[in-house]
Amino acid sequence: MLLFGRHYRSIWVDEQALETVCVIDQRHLPYRLVIETLRTEEDTAAAIRDMHVRGAGLIGAAAAYGVWLAVCRAGSDPGQAAQAAGRMLAATRPTAVNLTWAADRVCAAVRAAGDPPSARQAAYLEAGRIADEDAASCRAIGRFGADILAGISRRAGRPINILTHCNAGSLAFVDYGTATAPIYEAHRRGIRLHIYVDETRPLNQGSKLTAFELGQNGIPHTIITDNAGGHLMQHGLVDAVLVGSDRTTRTGDVANKIGTYLKALAAHAHHVPFYVALPISSIDWQLTDGVREIPIETRSEDEVLSITGQTSDGRLETVRLAPQGSRAANYGFDVTPARYVTALITEKGVCEASETGLKPFRPD
Amino acid sequence: MLLFGRHYRSIWVDEQALETVCVIDQRHLPYRLVIETLRTEEDTAAAIRDMHVRGAGLIGAAAAYGVWLAVCRAGSDPGQAAQAAGRMLAATRPTAVNLTWAADRVCAAVRAAGDPPSARQAAYLEAGRIADEDAASCRAIGRFGADILAGISRRAGRPINILTHCNAGSLAFVDYGTATAPIYEAHRRGIRLHIYVDETRPLNQGSKLTAFELGQNGIPHTIITDNAGGHLMQHGLVDAVLVGSDRTTRTGDVANKIGTYLKALAAHAHHVPFYVALPISSIDWQLTDGVREIPIETRSEDEVLSITGQTSDGRLETVRLAPQGSRAANYGFDVTPARYVTALITEKGVCEASETGLKPFRPD
Repeated sequence: MLLFGRHYRSIWVDEQALETVCVIDQRHLPYRLVIETLRTEEDTAAAIRDMHVRGAGLIGAAAAYGVWLAVCRAGSDPGQAAQAAGRMLAATRPTAVNLTWAADRVCAAVRAAGDPPSARQAAYLEAGRIADEDAASCRAIGRFGADILAGISRRAGRPINILTHCNAGSLAFVDYGTATAPIYEAHRRGIRLHIYVDETRPLNQGSKLTAFELGQNGIPHTIITDNAGGHLMQHGLVDAVLVGSDRTTRTGDVANKIGTYLKALAAHAHHVPFYVALPISSIDWQLTDGVREIPIETRSEDEVLSITGQTSDGRLETVRLAPQGSRAANYGFDVTPARYVTALITEKGVCEASETGLKPFRPD
Repeated sequence: MLLFGRHYRSIWVDEQALETVCVIDQRHLPYRLVIETLRTEEDTAAAIRDMHVRGAGLIGAAAAYGVWLAVCRAGSDPGQAAQAAGRMLAATRPTAVNLTWAADRVCAAVRAAGDPPSARQAAYLEAGRIADEDAASCRAIGRFGADILAGISRRAGRPINILTHCNAGSLAFVDYGTATAPIYEAHRRGIRLHIYVDETRPLNQGSKLTAFELGQNGIPHTIITDNAGGHLMQHGLVDAVLVGSDRTTRTGDVANKIGTYLKALAAHAHHVPFYVALPISSIDWQLTDGVREIPIETRSEDEVLSITGQTSDGRLETVRLAPQGSRAANYGFDVTPARYVTALITEKGVCEASETGLKPFRPD
């Protein structure tokens, strides 16, 4: 992605330093670009848990590098160190499946490698592969998704309006994003589009991150409250909804940021196509009923009771939005049943949100 | 309503002062109780437009008193002064129908009165009647609505969960509120209930006002983001949705705070009853198609791009939530078609949201 005119990924290894991973600390966006260095698996776990980094693909890549960092400092049993680190990292956030998937891949590479120096090398290479594959998957999602947007654009014969929720953007993956990748690719192909960006309370990843990266990459967009999408769809102002997924069942049920489901219901009511873009790594092949089986993270009530933003003199300030004494509940995700999903856009192609649709992508 | 242990209305005449109307300046809630005095129709218009006072019933009463204040300072033609003030006050907010309705009533009383002293007296009395009737209507709505909640409670055999959006509370009317009146009355009757309070971006009337007045009146409640309601209903955690209305068509379509429609869609999808509580004065008997005919106010984008809350050291501070350069759209209301409304709760009784259902309440 372009940030201030320079190409960035959201995570990379500092090749000048010893065993150091760099990430953009997203808590400071869109106000400041702060690069954070991670040197241990504990650093990495804290960065994931406290949401310096977030998003399915990015926390997967971060967990992979976290296992590498643990292996770098391991003694004679790198396999054991990798596994302990993997377990700790996987426990930082309960909803996304990529954490476990990525940590397991690096652990397997470490186990296969043997002695500590080979294990370090294997972990480094595997984490790098995970990051590269994530970026490549997102690019491929972008191409498949842009074909869909091209069709909508052709039929509309005017700039098309896409609504997105949260940040399934470059900042949520290693690069390109999932929901944003088709947007970037369509823009590159000259398709005229405009994005409605749900602000996405409580943490405002929409207004803070998606609006930021769309702006940095020259995509026309308008921020709206999470409340506005129903009204827009009712008045024909949205041509498609395009969101990401933190975990998708083998049957096509989609867990994504809280509020996604409300947009799916509105899209369904108004015959607006509802697309979910996701890497196949985020599919949980064990699950068949997303509403019953996907664990929904509940987070601190403080995220609802207050909010952090920038004052007119440039300071970050947290302000309380509720009376003392009132409590809040903070559900991080919700599940959109497959029947509300028009299609899934993956790096291997577009498919129906169903067991049959996903079958060709299923690993043996 | 009780505020800090004392009974308040949201608007009253200061009988100690000359021609002075008092309101609670709601921009300071829930942090501080600030009483504002209005002495002219311009004061009143500014208080309505800048949302020191808001809510269908309260801005109606404020407009009525605003016409009175204009008449107090009018010369030989109080009818003309009343009409000019009424026009100006009605133009402050476009969606609620109460503004015009209340201003017209006071204007008619002034016209009927004759000479300036009688006109002043007539305007004062008519504005007072409007305020008293608003409070009485809300109490009646409370009784009818509490009967419904009693039924839900009986069938559930446990504390019931009500979801509400925005503030159709005591603070939106002269007293009791519409959506909150059944809650207060049910609580008084000993029905065990718990309220999910949508925070209601952009201005957070839910977390700032509804949570505040529920807390002050001892009602158990939990603040949630506007995104959470779909998830709660999907998991059976909401027994009924109860909201207000800023304008209702003769056919039962309901304009209410932006985001109401998304909750109606979720309620419909999960067979959760969706009730709208409203005084008959807020019905626009001219309109038959709410989605096409009710004008939807668009407000400043700054309300979306930033938010005001209280810092840890007690100051009110406005913080920006979006990158410089990103723009926002700010729709104030949306329309829920009658087919998604289980019933309307009015001061004259409960009815189907339809032309047939509303017919008995129709003036001549």
